Amino acid sequence: MAEITLHYFPIYGRAEPVRMLLHYHGVQFNDHHVQLQDWPGLKTSGFSEFGQLPLLEIDGRRLVQSKAILRYVAEKYGYYPTDPRDIYFVESLSDFKEDVLNVTMPLMFRGEAEAVDKWYQESAPTVLQKIERRLVRNEGGNKFFVGKSLSMADFQIFGLIYDLFIIRNRANLVQTHAPKVYDFIQRALTSARLKAYVDSRPPSHV
Amino acid sequence: MAEITLHYFPIYGRAEPVRMLLHYHGVQFNDHHVQLQDWPGLKTSGFSEFGQLPLLEIDGRRLVQSKAILRYVAEKYGYYPTDPRDIYFVESLSDFKEDVLNVTMPLMFRGEAEAVDKWYQESAPTVLQKIERRLVRNEGGNKFFVGKSLSMADFQIFGLIYDLFIIRNRANLVQTHAPKVYDFIQRALTSARLKAYVDSRPPSHV
Repeated sequence: MAEITLHYFPIYGRAEPVRMLLHYHGVQFNDHHVQLQDWPGLKTSGFSEFGQLPLLEIDGRRLVQSKAILRYVAEKYGYYPTDPRDIYFVESLSDFKEDVLNVTMPLMFRGEAEAVDKWYQESAPTVLQKIERRLVRNEGGNKFFVGKSLSMADFQIFGLIYDLFIIRNRANLVQTHAPKVYDFIQRALTSARLKAYVDSRPPSHV
Repeated sequence: MAEITLHYFPIYGRAEPVRMLLHYHGVQFNDHHVQLQDWPGLKTSGFSEFGQLPLLEIDGRRLVQSKAILRYVAEKYGYYPTDPRDIYFVESLSDFKEDVLNVTMPLMFRGEAEAVDKWYQESAPTVLQKIERRLVRNEGGNKFFVGKSLSMADFQIFGLIYDLFIIRNRANLVQTHAPKVYDFIQRALTSARLKAYVDSRPPSHV
């Protein structure tokens, strides 16, 4: 089988749901961390079609754009629905998560502790409540975010909540504003492969 | 047939490819323009799941998130591919377009003419070249952006180029840096329905 290589910075950010899905599914891949000092040269080299990371080498191709990459591997390994209504639920949640990252990632990068705290206090509760409602709406919130099986959306939300709240000592916010989502995270962590990955991965540089 | 209503601000922005696709396909729909002064009340009313517009009422549901909406109507009316490779090309281009809008929309909203000019001078050529390469890579650029038929990607790129360059007196930039894309725009405008729509629509407020 051809090798699979993910190229991204040594952060969780936009590539983490891809890493999580591959680890969860037990897919062997090279997790290549591009150091920041090497990026300007690589960016202008034409290596990445749009001059961005993440980039996934798979099936003899170079895929770009984090969500298009995630969707590709989700389809390949069976985590993408076929019903248009379910696809809508997956995609709209995925886009909502992107909206959240578009706000939080620049905050984290700038490292302004006050602005970050303000986001957790003022914006995070609403974000969590919206995600909670989406989960509850699907079979009472006892299993998955969309339909009756694991989908790309579950990896998106697991990555968002775990990396933005759980490992940043904000688990209490999740328990308070999204208790079903908190349970969902705990259920996800009963996957030995996913648990082994998140426990052993290097810390994110941002 | 149930009514279809699109709710969005009186701007082109993120809803325009949806409007264009519906008009192109000859779908009757209500194009409801939410005035800015009415938005705070509507936002907090729970009308829109995530408190955002656009929102599309269709098939008895309220769909949110512009790209999830576009994907839904693209699938419904036959502008979404089935092959995973083609889906990747559609989605990665669609995500690239979103990256561009995430930069240009705030610039336009703030109305800083100098910053806008700087974007056209310094960033637009590279953006156009990337889109041109994607088009040329597909059958030499003589037809569509993905595969052998019209897809959601064509509406995304038509909307981006037409609204960001053509109607803003920047067609010359497209002709210079993306001549095949320029031809693509001209071909698209041979659609009587699409042409009638873009010629008759009210101006965007931003």
